[in-house]
Amino acid sequence: MARQWQLTSRPDGMPTAETFALREVDLPDVRDGEIRVRNLWLSVDPYMRGRMNESKSYIAPFPIDGAMEGGAIGEVLESKADGFAKGDLVSHFAGWRDEAVISTKGVHKLPDIGATPQSFLSILGMPGATAYFGLFDVAAAKDDDIVFVSAAAGAVGSAVVQLAKARGMTVIGSAGGAEKCDLIRSLGADEAVDYKAGSILGGLKQAAPKGIDVYFDNVGSDHLDAAFACSRQWARFALCGMIAGYNSREPAQFKYIIRMIASRITMRGFLYGDYVSRLDEFYREMGQLVAAGKVTAQETVFEGLETTPDAFLGLFSGANSGKMLVRV
Amino acid sequence: MARQWQLTSRPDGMPTAETFALREVDLPDVRDGEIRVRNLWLSVDPYMRGRMNESKSYIAPFPIDGAMEGGAIGEVLESKADGFAKGDLVSHFAGWRDEAVISTKGVHKLPDIGATPQSFLSILGMPGATAYFGLFDVAAAKDDDIVFVSAAAGAVGSAVVQLAKARGMTVIGSAGGAEKCDLIRSLGADEAVDYKAGSILGGLKQAAPKGIDVYFDNVGSDHLDAAFACSRQWARFALCGMIAGYNSREPAQFKYIIRMIASRITMRGFLYGDYVSRLDEFYREMGQLVAAGKVTAQETVFEGLETTPDAFLGLFSGANSGKMLVRV
Repeated sequence: MARQWQLTSRPDGMPTAETFALREVDLPDVRDGEIRVRNLWLSVDPYMRGRMNESKSYIAPFPIDGAMEGGAIGEVLESKADGFAKGDLVSHFAGWRDEAVISTKGVHKLPDIGATPQSFLSILGMPGATAYFGLFDVAAAKDDDIVFVSAAAGAVGSAVVQLAKARGMTVIGSAGGAEKCDLIRSLGADEAVDYKAGSILGGLKQAAPKGIDVYFDNVGSDHLDAAFACSRQWARFALCGMIAGYNSREPAQFKYIIRMIASRITMRGFLYGDYVSRLDEFYREMGQLVAAGKVTAQETVFEGLETTPDAFLGLFSGANSGKMLVRV
Repeated sequence: MARQWQLTSRPDGMPTAETFALREVDLPDVRDGEIRVRNLWLSVDPYMRGRMNESKSYIAPFPIDGAMEGGAIGEVLESKADGFAKGDLVSHFAGWRDEAVISTKGVHKLPDIGATPQSFLSILGMPGATAYFGLFDVAAAKDDDIVFVSAAAGAVGSAVVQLAKARGMTVIGSAGGAEKCDLIRSLGADEAVDYKAGSILGGLKQAAPKGIDVYFDNVGSDHLDAAFACSRQWARFALCGMIAGYNSREPAQFKYIIRMIASRITMRGFLYGDYVSRLDEFYREMGQLVAAGKVTAQETVFEGLETTPDAFLGLFSGANSGKMLVRV
């Protein structure tokens, strides 16, 4: 028997423990082209909240009373698929469970570049690639830019801080609480703004008296509005998530969005999936930075499959520094 | 004696008649490099509201008890400047008055392309160029795009409708009231949404069941939010003004801004001034369309210098179809 987390109902606002149920299921036999995999590490990510709603988005809703999904790292226990052998470590999408039988579409053997398995869910995985392509491609950040990144102690944000500093940019990060602000500074940020200690607008004005050229948004809401207010001419904003709004039905309020015009701001939404065809470039560039110690994986680990919903809910209360992971 | 409109105080919210005073002033003698010009046509534009505030923007605030400025077409009465002779028709920036002595920086003789003088304040002037560069450059509109333009009966919007139709695009325009919606349709729009007859979101969903590829925003606020909600993948939004917010201190509310991410929207603010170096291209392209009758100037005319503040305030109550002009 394998165990998997299932959704019991569609949450209205913040999910609770009752939203999830850990259920035992029989696994089918492995057929041609399939592998059986035992999960070692699971990813929980803010975007998963969107899949709990009924409404269609760029990715289908989770089923009710069916297997949930998400990034995971596992070990192959049995293989009837070319290119995969017992003992291989793979990244795949059958997370939220301990074991699965899956086709190998979208399954990748971990490249042997001297990194830990779980880093392919963090700095060398989706959050790291989101940071890399968002900063350099979507926001077209240049070495002398002043960069503001929100949720800078998070999985994506902590990667943005380190990447921007590795290129010599000036970096301002925001986070909630003194401890996370210390972490941001330890990663190299020039300034850290504690949004729990005062208004983010006031904090950003003080931290960036010359204004900002790039805003990497993980929050939306008042953070995005503060970025509008503090923008310099021709600034670029990259949007990859707005965690402030995921559990809210209230519209976001913007007092300074009109600054987009006079400051000629370009704001662009993007998805990690848009860049999958360029992952080779990412592994090469980010792999070098990681190997050189210029960028390090930031991770918070919950222990045991049972803790997966707690780890997920912790994303919205700020329980994580860096990437939130579950060790199965 | 010349007469000029001056600002008496900085308005809080909507300006009133008391905000403006028509005063007589002595004009200085014309010195070398200067001309004396008698105005024939004055432009009033929504962006002027921003210059009535104290706060710095991309253009300096109007002074209190000093000459206001704005686009104008005049006849040269006296010249001590090379290249300008008595009788020349010129476009310049010393509007809100009947006569002025000015240096010739930023003064242009009207090109002889068979257009009326006032059209260099409308379809061949700032509004027309804003429409042209916003649609083709900022929004990178393609011939098979579905284009939504707000305030489509206004100076910029009516030019966008006609330009987009001249290229064969599908065009949806919004305006307030049945009469303006009829005007939009007469300019070629496929659909017109009357925002006074119901929610703009409901109207846009009905008018654009397949969604939109381009949004040309002149309004902001609920129009922009509706565009987020109805956006197709990889849509481009061009922002050149947000008239809904100019007299308001309330923040704008957005329920659908998060769609920027899943729909990969690119949104960009721009100013007419960014494209002054490309006006030759504009005169050539737009001049041909005007000469061929494919694009026509839409104008509302107030008569007499005394009516200038009324014409300006009329912009915010929707008193104009097309470009609002004052015949001096």
